[in-house]
Amino acid sequence: MTTTDLSKFNNSWYDPGANALKRLSWYCVNAVWINSAFPISGIKVMLLRMFGARIGKGVVIKPHVNIKYPWKLTIADHVWIGEDVWIDNLTQVVIEENVCISQGALLLCGNHNYKKETFDLVLGEIKLEKGVWIGAKSTVCPGVTCHSHAVLTVGSVATSNLEAYKIYQGNPAQLIRERQFMN
Amino acid sequence: MTTTDLSKFNNSWYDPGANALKRLSWYCVNAVWINSAFPISGIKVMLLRMFGARIGKGVVIKPHVNIKYPWKLTIADHVWIGEDVWIDNLTQVVIEENVCISQGALLLCGNHNYKKETFDLVLGEIKLEKGVWIGAKSTVCPGVTCHSHAVLTVGSVATSNLEAYKIYQGNPAQLIRERQFMN
Amino acid sequence: MTTTDLSKFNNSWYDPGANALKRLSWYCVNAVWINSAFPISGIKVMLLRMFGARIGKGVVIKPHVNIKYPWKLTIADHVWIGEDVWIDNLTQVVIEENVCISQGALLLCGNHNYKKETFDLVLGEIKLEKGVWIGAKSTVCPGVTCHSHAVLTVGSVATSNLEAYKIYQGNPAQLIRERQFMN
Repeated sequence: MTTTDLSKFNNSWYDPGANALKRLSWYCVNAVWINSAFPISGIKVMLLRMFGARIGKGVVIKPHVNIKYPWKLTIADHVWIGEDVWIDNLTQVVIEENVCISQGALLLCGNHNYKKETFDLVLGEIKLEKGVWIGAKSTVCPGVTCHSHAVLTVGSVATSNLEAYKIYQGNPAQLIRERQFMN
Repeated sequence: MTTTDLSKFNNSWYDPGANALKRLSWYCVNAVWINSAFPISGIKVMLLRMFGARIGKGVVIKPHVNIKYPWKLTIADHVWIGEDVWIDNLTQVVIEENVCISQGALLLCGNHNYKKETFDLVLGEIKLEKGVWIGAKSTVCPGVTCHSHAVLTVGSVATSNLEAYKIYQGNPAQLIRERQFMN
Repeated sequence: MTTTDLSKFNNSWYDPGANALKRLSWYCVNAVWINSAFPISGIKVMLLRMFGARIGKGVVIKPHVNIKYPWKLTIADHVWIGEDVWIDNLTQVVIEENVCISQGALLLCGNHNYKKETFDLVLGEIKLEKGVWIGAKSTVCPGVTCHSHAVLTVGSVATSNLEAYKIYQGNPAQLIRERQFMN
């Protein structure tokens, strides 16, 4: 039978979007100011912008957030990034206005082709449309779009797109009900 | 359709239970002594008590534990808090004697009313009755009581109360069997 | 009814495999060099070997990895240990060649006998055979063997052995399909 051979893995085609010096600089800034107990959100937003993130107004970034590459990150107005959130954006992540990503959630942009001996890296952009709520300790998988005002509940894993104004739960996340607003 | 507007979020009604100076002090103490590699449990218990936690005897607190507000925390005798446990107690958490919270578990006290444009904060107290076991990487949701000697298995999510002497698994956690003791 | 009494817990039979000084030294080395932002994999491999780990060539260890006891760890050639992976190896963990453990995964070797008043520690060795892929934020439970080229998907919990060349998902992880390689 065919077997995996990680010594043959080759991601030389991958464009990280910044040179080694910029990546190393960001790695240190992320470690010290973003993925740490440092609490002042405004300074974190400023640092992310300096490294190329497009970030709107009224964005709140809690402590211990881990962001791979700010130059592949777009965040609109009034978005909340909870404590211990991990945005592992090897490729573009777009977060529209009024999105809440709760504590401990993971946005995962990297996958592997497990059908190939070479275990090729496969990327998938993530888009969270306006009003989406990503619950605590939940995970959004590569390539997933969460449409307007979708909800992913606590600890769930979104492996495919979430429809607008629907609520999903479980692993893989299943539609459980409508998100109906009160009048 | 109605949309979420996080700019209208208002939690001014919320009482954190301590003034800003005390909260900032705890934030630093938590970052340095509790949510860190510092290993001496007795000193951690002492610090938590200084900030208002009621903690019994024989309590073990492992490294990298994250506690929001000690003045909203009650822990009885002979309780174990595992490594990387997160007690996000925006409101009261009560842990009775002989409870084990295993590594990586989360006690989550904050929710949001996703049916309101204003995404209101909703709190729910958590109570873990005596002999309860919260498994590694599992989550207890806001407002949940785990009754005497209930077990939440590894990676499961308790979204409603757990009955006494029962074992629950999955997301949402379902009853899978009785907890029967050997003679 | 019988109740848990953690004051009667007794793990004096347990052999950590190293004296207190060596364990304390490792605890510090792990905290500073392994379970931290320190990025140079080769130095981490060297440190692990100094403390008794058997590690092959071409092994990559990402930042924020947490390893309990290197002297109970065997890693073959061309293995990847992702960021934030936790190898909680109270007992032996054996990882064969070409295994990928993705970010945030947990290998859990300790359990408790919840049927006993004394909540006895129960250990279970973990073996990941060649070509296995442990997905991001997933958990392998004590005593589980993942046979050759098995896949545990994102956020899943392996509570029993995984068959060779099969893919598992959920909590508890269920077989969902074959892992078929392309020609």
